[in-house]
Amino acid sequence: MSIRFHDLAAADPAVRFSPFCWRIRFALAHKELAAEAVCWRFTDKDAIAFSGQGKVPVLQDGDTVVSDSWDIALYLEKAYPDRPTLFPEGSGIAHARFVRNWVEATVQLPILQLVIPELFEALHERDKAYFRESREARFGCSLEDFALPAEKAVPRIRNAFTPLRLTLTDQPFLSGETPGLADFIAVAPFYWAAAVSSSALLEQDDPVRSWVLRLHERYPAAREGCRLTSAQPG
Amino acid sequence: MSIRFHDLAAADPAVRFSPFCWRIRFALAHKELAAEAVCWRFTDKDAIAFSGQGKVPVLQDGDTVVSDSWDIALYLEKAYPDRPTLFPEGSGIAHARFVRNWVEATVQLPILQLVIPELFEALHERDKAYFRESREARFGCSLEDFALPAEKAVPRIRNAFTPLRLTLTDQPFLSGETPGLADFIAVAPFYWAAAVSSSALLEQDDPVRSWVLRLHERYPAAREGCRLTSAQPG
Repeated sequence: MSIRFHDLAAADPAVRFSPFCWRIRFALAHKELAAEAVCWRFTDKDAIAFSGQGKVPVLQDGDTVVSDSWDIALYLEKAYPDRPTLFPEGSGIAHARFVRNWVEATVQLPILQLVIPELFEALHERDKAYFRESREARFGCSLEDFALPAEKAVPRIRNAFTPLRLTLTDQPFLSGETPGLADFIAVAPFYWAAAVSSSALLEQDDPVRSWVLRLHERYPAAREGCRLTSAQPG
Repeated sequence: MSIRFHDLAAADPAVRFSPFCWRIRFALAHKELAAEAVCWRFTDKDAIAFSGQGKVPVLQDGDTVVSDSWDIALYLEKAYPDRPTLFPEGSGIAHARFVRNWVEATVQLPILQLVIPELFEALHERDKAYFRESREARFGCSLEDFALPAEKAVPRIRNAFTPLRLTLTDQPFLSGETPGLADFIAVAPFYWAAAVSSSALLEQDDPVRSWVLRLHERYPAAREGCRLTSAQPG
């Protein structure tokens, strides 16, 4: 049985930018599971109708279908318990959940504000109206008003990563001595940015950048078939 | 052998306000260890000179002396492994460390900005000059300029707790099904505030408030001998 998942793409099918899909790319690489990343765009709702909802990632493993990146990670952990764990030593679920909520509540917003003009430009033409309409409804303003220039967004991004930066002075990964889903959730936004933007998010000597690069080196399989705007994210 | 720890007090010796000491109060209560909380004030440096540094909490357990709330928690876990764990299922250290850094980087600042006028008033007269001087050097401004009115501070506090709020929709405690050090680190600032201020930090129906009250009910021993400004923190 082979694993496949639908993965959000820009106009260029090699540009894969969803941070939620990047979590699964890393989770699969960590579990050393080969998978086909099926090119999907926002308006291809019919292609994932079989999942009963309209968002990616959607994972298919034989007859099993799982949507939502969190549920996919839990599924992979349960289905492949003999592979490297995503949730170190059993209590990692509570940890990864808090990291997920921290990333979604504090880190993702300023990154999106920085890269959204480039992200919008990179989208497939048939996705642009959908993206604008759905995001403007969510943000309560136009994409242009939501965007922030680098001189405002970058300091916010660097500040938002402070808890991670402090943690990396005492341990090599968020999950502890070994990377786990908490790391993949936190590193995914760097790939989201690097897929569409060449903006530097971090200072050269930031411990967070060293951590991004450690994960980048460790999991080449996570970015198989993908094009980034520079050799390294961050 | 009995356990004692030096615990920061205001002019009223029943007002114990250090969030770092509150972590240890909860950790001891969780481990069901009786301890004497020795009244200590900022300028009583001689009283803890035996610890080789000048800050509390300082824990004495027989001949063992440990300072720094994080190291004290690690010590208690190691010395009392048969008591309820502070770091659920062994990988909890990485989790608690990230929560500690999140609390210190994002949550404590706006709480301190809210309560600092009342905190300063509550201090022992002999501590006031030390507190003003050391904090003004740290903040780079006067205590009065550092303080924020409730209408500015309270929304920041509520927003800072978003990752915790989201997490509590899926699990009862930060540490998972059972409280652990991560919870005690995050709840301690509420006792810091409640020791000196009657400001409400959270909305009545905030899941974070329900979590504070669950911990409050569960660990009455943590506040033994302490006076709070209201029946409940939060």
